[in-house]
Amino acid sequence: MRVLGVDPGLTRCGMAVVEASSGRRVAMVSVTVVRTPASDDLGLRLHEIHQQAVAVIESESPDVVAVERVFSQHNTKTAMGTAQAAAVVMLAGVQAGLPVASHTPSEVKAAVTGYGNSDKEQVAAMVMRLLRLGERPRPADATDALALAICHAWRAPLSRRLKEVGV
Amino acid sequence: MRVLGVDPGLTRCGMAVVEASSGRRVAMVSVTVVRTPASDDLGLRLHEIHQQAVAVIESESPDVVAVERVFSQHNTKTAMGTAQAAAVVMLAGVQAGLPVASHTPSEVKAAVTGYGNSDKEQVAAMVMRLLRLGERPRPADATDALALAICHAWRAPLSRRLKEVGV
Repeated sequence: MRVLGVDPGLTRCGMAVVEASSGRRVAMVSVTVVRTPASDDLGLRLHEIHQQAVAVIESESPDVVAVERVFSQHNTKTAMGTAQAAAVVMLAGVQAGLPVASHTPSEVKAAVTGYGNSDKEQVAAMVMRLLRLGERPRPADATDALALAICHAWRAPLSRRLKEVGV
Repeated sequence: MRVLGVDPGLTRCGMAVVEASSGRRVAMVSVTVVRTPASDDLGLRLHEIHQQAVAVIESESPDVVAVERVFSQHNTKTAMGTAQAAAVVMLAGVQAGLPVASHTPSEVKAAVTGYGNSDKEQVAAMVMRLLRLGERPRPADATDALALAICHAWRAPLSRRLKEVGV
């Protein structure tokens, strides 16, 4: 299964494609961070992010799009922009006929490090190890997008089984 | 000038097209309220709203898209969904090569009734009067979308002049 994992954001939007094979093996296919300037109109920024998502889907042919679920506990204005970036990425997924899933930051941390409250360093270290990367992907949004893709790849079989038994 | 005014929302998204001519004359071209069921996946709901916005832009050929600016003072979860619905409508506008503007609820109320704190009833009464409608458009989202379009039509010349003089 090939997963496009997205760490949404207006200023930086991480998009990572990971190939998962049997035995929880994962490999990085590509990772990119789309940046849009705060000086641009919101509509233009969303358009750029949507176009880049469409481009990644076309070039990497993922089977599914997994987006980090946005919460608004912190900075509400940032959260709104993040939710809007997530919206146009989800749209790109649906337009390409792909299933679109979302995972919370805790789910991502728990999946990758085994611990839902792990910090950024621990997540980054595990992502490097799991994907056998020589150096840490920069910026952090790249690492987060990779972690999200791995999380989805590993949780998807479980979610499917739960659905089959009607949970 | 022909304005597509949008009152964004996931459950109900009002889309109204108003034609403005000289002397603050306005006429309703069309109004529709797109509904998406809460039981659908978020991605599908956003896709439906985007498709309907694209369809309205194609059929009515507005010169500009004006969307209500979303704030999160009330229910944060609803505000996030509203912001996401606004995002895909703005995207549809940019994709069609149209300018995309936004106005706050106070700006809309002030433009239509002359008073930024007017209530829904007052706004609805003025929208009916200005557009010479025999009955009140239902649901409320239709009225709000019409009010937004009128607000933009009337504010646009002022905004343009302010830009010209560098304000």
